[in-house]
Amino acid sequence: MDATIQHNKCRIALDVMGGDFAPQNNILGAKEALKLDKSIEITFVGKRNEITKFLSEQKFDKQDYSIIDADEVIEMNDVPTEAIKSKKKSSIVVGLNLVKDNTVDAFLSAGNTGAMLTASTLILGRIKGVGRPTIGTPIPTKRGGVCTLIDSGTSVDCRPNHLLEYAILGSIFVKGMYGVENPTIGLLSIGEEDSKGNELTLAANKLLRKSGLNFVGNVEGRDILAGNVDIVICDGFVGNVILKFAESIADWLKTKIKSYMNESFINKIKTLVAKGIFKNLFSPFDYQRQGGVPLLGVDGISIIGHGKSSPLAIKNMIFNARDIYSKNLVNKFKEAIKNYGK
Amino acid sequence: MDATIQHNKCRIALDVMGGDFAPQNNILGAKEALKLDKSIEITFVGKRNEITKFLSEQKFDKQDYSIIDADEVIEMNDVPTEAIKSKKKSSIVVGLNLVKDNTVDAFLSAGNTGAMLTASTLILGRIKGVGRPTIGTPIPTKRGGVCTLIDSGTSVDCRPNHLLEYAILGSIFVKGMYGVENPTIGLLSIGEEDSKGNELTLAANKLLRKSGLNFVGNVEGRDILAGNVDIVICDGFVGNVILKFAESIADWLKTKIKSYMNESFINKIKTLVAKGIFKNLFSPFDYQRQGGVPLLGVDGISIIGHGKSSPLAIKNMIFNARDIYSKNLVNKFKEAIKNYGK
Repeated sequence: MDATIQHNKCRIALDVMGGDFAPQNNILGAKEALKLDKSIEITFVGKRNEITKFLSEQKFDKQDYSIIDADEVIEMNDVPTEAIKSKKKSSIVVGLNLVKDNTVDAFLSAGNTGAMLTASTLILGRIKGVGRPTIGTPIPTKRGGVCTLIDSGTSVDCRPNHLLEYAILGSIFVKGMYGVENPTIGLLSIGEEDSKGNELTLAANKLLRKSGLNFVGNVEGRDILAGNVDIVICDGFVGNVILKFAESIADWLKTKIKSYMNESFINKIKTLVAKGIFKNLFSPFDYQRQGGVPLLGVDGISIIGHGKSSPLAIKNMIFNARDIYSKNLVNKFKEAIKNYGK
Repeated sequence: MDATIQHNKCRIALDVMGGDFAPQNNILGAKEALKLDKSIEITFVGKRNEITKFLSEQKFDKQDYSIIDADEVIEMNDVPTEAIKSKKKSSIVVGLNLVKDNTVDAFLSAGNTGAMLTASTLILGRIKGVGRPTIGTPIPTKRGGVCTLIDSGTSVDCRPNHLLEYAILGSIFVKGMYGVENPTIGLLSIGEEDSKGNELTLAANKLLRKSGLNFVGNVEGRDILAGNVDIVICDGFVGNVILKFAESIADWLKTKIKSYMNESFINKIKTLVAKGIFKNLFSPFDYQRQGGVPLLGVDGISIIGHGKSSPLAIKNMIFNARDIYSKNLVNKFKEAIKNYGK
């Protein structure tokens, strides 16, 4: 793919088969996105018959979309590496090949995450100089912004140079997507001093110190929600654990509030009065709003959505893809990695 | 120390110099504990003059305590290994030697955590068969109980057998302290399947599977607050990061509630009405209530408190020590480790 050619329209291929509520949520999300932004062209990838049936029920205008048939589905419990080889006509394999061939500018799927990771790396290829593609996930901070956690679960058992790559890719991503000039980078460790950490972080700290990036040093678990840096770098094992812990906070809060409410009638009244506050507490952890997360470091735009994506999540995922495309981020990643160390 | 001899009274040595609010909070906490439980004997360890002065101001009854002079202090920024060697008359070194000599049954300090860890291991020694002493921290779950996270920051770069040891020690601790019969143990990883994880957890999973412990398999970050197991085992790097992340939730919540409150007058009223709910949300993360955490795997009772310990925290720390002593946990650890693999 030659990503230097930017079209007026952003051509997006959407996996209609991926996700727990496919195809309806996927198609409804696309409809909403098309309504709001005329610069988007949507290609639905999946079982043509199912798509056509659903689209006619929804009274879609035929000129708004195209369909690419993919009559196999990589299921959630399929083993990624095997499924990619055996299901060549699956929506994920077909969709990513559309990006590779430059037929579309981005591919989006709420299907099997492992398959998306593996297939994106194999089909689109890694950007030259990138050892391991990664995912950064924005976590809402108390300052109102986000702290992007990289790697949030793509690679375990990282080497120090992988963490350096995450910092380079993360800097470009956070600047491009959130408009943060020269974002601050922290290395997740168990103490702020450079001498604190495990083998991996001690070595990565040294690489980051001489990287020329806006590296502020080690940060701790508490600095994420506090928003003390724009980007927190860690191994994918740690990132995944933190992310899943963070996702469980809303549920914890809901249970605590419910139990308070059930203690007495007066507590019930108080809770009802205060309803608006809770929305404010839960919504930052609502991953539907965020849509999907792009795989950073592959040569093309591949966005991975949550299995339980709502139409809203699909719509936001489409807008994420559009923004990454219009900001020319893939080329910026390439330049940054190429220029690093020069 | 021969921990098989159980006295009627529990003899506790308290570091009066350790902590950000020493000596006042330490002494006030001890006073509160003595008032509530006559079975406790307190020995204050620290600078005799300072202790005597404060005690007379507080109108302490002389028969309630004894003082052991220790005129050096390991400061918060001292390097633990060096400080232990150079400050032989520090409260931490003197206090732990009192346990070693069987002059007291437990030593408690809210001082330099690293120094407490190192000095406890060096002076009390490790229980035979324990590679690395550890700390387990209870995290409040949505079910109302706690999930104990082991190791919560003592050892980074663990080997698989260390995680097995944590599971053995944790089982005894959680049964003894929280009365949970045959507590369930989960290994913190990035997926529930045995095949998911990093090099460390893949190997530890195999050891735990054949351990005969009540091991339920891998758990994820979300299972901690959900309370899906009684004990979560992990490397100290991961444990420290999770713990500090969890500690920052209350602050995040407070900021979000404050910003909602400041949006309008009506929001302010609503927030005031709902005040009681928030207390319910913050208090589980109030580490003052918990007091301190015992170092598991050393041959004696050594309890490490938070640097910012309030009198309440000190009081609870004293009660923790008393409970560990009266339940004879150190001997139970010894038996469990000795019997393991037989």
